[in-house]
Amino acid sequence: MSHGTLRYFDTTLRDGTQGENVSFSADDKVRIAKKLDTLGVHYIEGGWPGSNPKDMEFFNRVQSEDFNTAKIVAFGSTMRFGNNPHSDPNIQALIEANTTTVSLFGKSWTLHVTEALGISREDNLHLISESVKYLKSMGREVIYDAEHFFDGFKADPAYALETVKAASIAGADWVVLCDTNGGTLPHEIEDIVSKTSRVISTPLGIHAHNDAELAVANSISAVRSGCTQIQGTINGYGERSGNANLCSIIPTLQLKLGYEGIPAQQLRNLTSLSLFVAELANLSHSNQLPYVGKSAFAHKGGIHVSAVIKNPDTYEHIKPESVGNSRRVLLSDLSGRSNIKFKADELNLDLERYEEHIPAIVRELKQREYEGFMYEAAEASLELLIRSITKNAFETFELQGFRMLIEKNEGFPIRSEATIRVLVNGETEHTAAEAVGPVHALDQALRKALIKFFPEIDEMQLSDYKVRVLNEKDATKARVRVLIDSTCNGHRWGTVGVSENIIEASWQALMESFCYYLINHHKSESSAQPIL
Amino acid sequence: MSHGTLRYFDTTLRDGTQGENVSFSADDKVRIAKKLDTLGVHYIEGGWPGSNPKDMEFFNRVQSEDFNTAKIVAFGSTMRFGNNPHSDPNIQALIEANTTTVSLFGKSWTLHVTEALGISREDNLHLISESVKYLKSMGREVIYDAEHFFDGFKADPAYALETVKAASIAGADWVVLCDTNGGTLPHEIEDIVSKTSRVISTPLGIHAHNDAELAVANSISAVRSGCTQIQGTINGYGERSGNANLCSIIPTLQLKLGYEGIPAQQLRNLTSLSLFVAELANLSHSNQLPYVGKSAFAHKGGIHVSAVIKNPDTYEHIKPESVGNSRRVLLSDLSGRSNIKFKADELNLDLERYEEHIPAIVRELKQREYEGFMYEAAEASLELLIRSITKNAFETFELQGFRMLIEKNEGFPIRSEATIRVLVNGETEHTAAEAVGPVHALDQALRKALIKFFPEIDEMQLSDYKVRVLNEKDATKARVRVLIDSTCNGHRWGTVGVSENIIEASWQALMESFCYYLINHHKSESSAQPIL
Repeated sequence: MSHGTLRYFDTTLRDGTQGENVSFSADDKVRIAKKLDTLGVHYIEGGWPGSNPKDMEFFNRVQSEDFNTAKIVAFGSTMRFGNNPHSDPNIQALIEANTTTVSLFGKSWTLHVTEALGISREDNLHLISESVKYLKSMGREVIYDAEHFFDGFKADPAYALETVKAASIAGADWVVLCDTNGGTLPHEIEDIVSKTSRVISTPLGIHAHNDAELAVANSISAVRSGCTQIQGTINGYGERSGNANLCSIIPTLQLKLGYEGIPAQQLRNLTSLSLFVAELANLSHSNQLPYVGKSAFAHKGGIHVSAVIKNPDTYEHIKPESVGNSRRVLLSDLSGRSNIKFKADELNLDLERYEEHIPAIVRELKQREYEGFMYEAAEASLELLIRSITKNAFETFELQGFRMLIEKNEGFPIRSEATIRVLVNGETEHTAAEAVGPVHALDQALRKALIKFFPEIDEMQLSDYKVRVLNEKDATKARVRVLIDSTCNGHRWGTVGVSENIIEASWQALMESFCYYLINHHKSESSAQPIL
Repeated sequence: MSHGTLRYFDTTLRDGTQGENVSFSADDKVRIAKKLDTLGVHYIEGGWPGSNPKDMEFFNRVQSEDFNTAKIVAFGSTMRFGNNPHSDPNIQALIEANTTTVSLFGKSWTLHVTEALGISREDNLHLISESVKYLKSMGREVIYDAEHFFDGFKADPAYALETVKAASIAGADWVVLCDTNGGTLPHEIEDIVSKTSRVISTPLGIHAHNDAELAVANSISAVRSGCTQIQGTINGYGERSGNANLCSIIPTLQLKLGYEGIPAQQLRNLTSLSLFVAELANLSHSNQLPYVGKSAFAHKGGIHVSAVIKNPDTYEHIKPESVGNSRRVLLSDLSGRSNIKFKADELNLDLERYEEHIPAIVRELKQREYEGFMYEAAEASLELLIRSITKNAFETFELQGFRMLIEKNEGFPIRSEATIRVLVNGETEHTAAEAVGPVHALDQALRKALIKFFPEIDEMQLSDYKVRVLNEKDATKARVRVLIDSTCNGHRWGTVGVSENIIEASWQALMESFCYYLINHHKSESSAQPIL
């Protein structure tokens, strides 16, 4: 039932970062681009070099990376009125980004032409035409983004069509129709895309926003009406209510409607990509996310579970494995085993030698997940757990004890002081530190205690600290989970701690972060040490 | 452009609670039902009395409540094979719930009839028909939910239609078509609803799930094809990826497509209802939520902001006020003022007497929100703030200081001990307590210190504790926000604290919770005290 081949255009790194609280470093961006390539998207929009000098760093760094299927795309606007393309700073920044492909946005809505730009309709057509021609003459693949196309079409269909005809005639390789304000409905999309496709022969794309919770439906409606490029972001990140969510669109088009674009095998990377991007964006991964959320294939007890075990079709709209997700009924020991092997593989741990330990690892993991631990974002803690059960732990340091004093006197700032005793190579080190909060004080005290034995800890740092209350209804007696992310020279690892006492949970995550770092640091220095 | 009048059926309290981590007490349910009535929904499904004895408590309690437009609905399945309706426990539980309206679900998909129920197709039609007839004979309005109707129709259209015809002929007042597995696409909904409406004359409804991120689009497609009842939940809560989100569906149908159902004035309660339900569900309110999210009408700097100020239509698909939300550009002092008045009104505080203090309140609130405070779920803290600025604070107790000792020795459990000194009526009380975690210890110590002056604090308790790290990238130095909810005899209030030190943030929220309780307790005992 193949309906044709589609091109997926990811703009997580550009439009996605317009979302509140979404921001990526240039390093994050390169890592996400590599992961998107593993999924198999066709275009990765990396930023707006003309508007944001930080984005240029990404385009520089990405030059030295290899990609399998993805083309890196630089985004920018048509030249300003009065300029010519050779001297327009924005167009020149697009050229300097040195990508094979550029996406260029221009105005389609008379309201924006006359009110926002304040130029004539003809001048706007000229800006579009000249900008596209110039970029084509410089050898670029040009994706023309018709901003506000649907609102423009509703206001003045003839003029909206004129703008995309101008881009098409000037040689654009794609014309992408944008629902910039996100307010268009699926039946309107169908109508307008169909009419547009009768007027120009350039391949069409769709760029939808989610202001009416219809971005996925609008994208699918556009594809059914003839668009062959779909723009969107991972997890639907983006300004206001977000962009069209590629994690929902791609499986719907491929698994339900028979379109092609990403090989079935690669589609299985979708769930892990979704989690990865959420982690780097520092946002919690919503359990409810369709296809890729933790609850997407979770079945509560009773009727559903017994029916779904007899026949998954009774309560599942697709096979969870096809997007790399899994059903959450009680896991059998067998599937538990295969999960561990899968995880170990991801961590480059050779578990074959320790086959007999797998049941114990599965048991321990299940127990810990029941207690509230979560290893999806804490691979370092998982590695330490596997090392400990397979007797591959390394001696680094041992806690003898710590004490925390927090003192508040009216009229004075609060004080936090930590004292700590650790044992390293048979020697006890006893130090103290004071800091702004209790966890920070503990971190400082531990560093002071360890530095004389392990001067390399100066190079690592904690980069991220998250707390989640697990059973909020138990109020101040509730169990909390702490996640810590640490970095050293571009490496990044996560650790987890769970306790009814937030200081203890923080200590667990903190200590494991240091242990993991020391083990892996020593491992790389001396190949004589046993490696899992 | 009126297209007709719709009926909204809210199932937050029934299907919504199938969502992971969504659970409501009977008390929460009554409060939510009252708020739903304020919005103006037509049906409120309260639970499944036959499956869950706890749900019966809701149906008992709600008897004594008055509703303006909403009818309370009890949910249950058709009778079991072999029973008759007079003795079927599930049907009898529906009767005992004593509601005007019941929703009754039955099977439409041959796969479920033969595999899940294991009965013949004819027997299934009989169960539907007899169950509906009996409930009608008992004077109930009957909403028949055709479970898995769309999957059933795709597998065997003739049989799926037989099942809804059976309900219709038996006298059902509504036939609701359910996309139980959430995998149907909008164009399929359109096709199947149109075909069904040709076969039966009973009014049709739609019940969609969000497994392909299409529940909103599917609901709209169904309405355009003839359905006049829409079932869904607030914020899209529900099993797996959730139910159709009424917060997106209602404004789209009314503001964009011209349908009627809820008066425009009441639609302005939508955003506050959405926040209220999220709070009671103990879930964070996603900024990205269409229409009602904090970011839904947020404009980042630059081009957008200047254009949107000139003309909101340039970047806004609807007027935010129409759903009770607001644009987030920089607030003018004027709109800040009206927000405070609106808030004071909600809190029953008479601000008119303190007109001259409003600018100071606006300034202080802006400063605090900038620092990370959040008052949406902490009305008690907001009241205390307004009291303090308008010089209406009450003397309760004063902190002189506290000290917290947290001690961990290897091999022993962690210990948390708090000592505290408070001043009440000129008398210093100095006490100590030990507990499982530091915040719990602080709570216990404060109670011990206050109980001799205020024995009534025994009746209040902390019911909910939440922590959020505000700038996670700053790792252990990050600022945290603590929200505490407290309850006493069915009253509930929220307080907030923000600090770089989690103990201090917790202390602020804890202390304000006690202050608020004591002020309001005394206020009700002595009307001689000044009331804001």
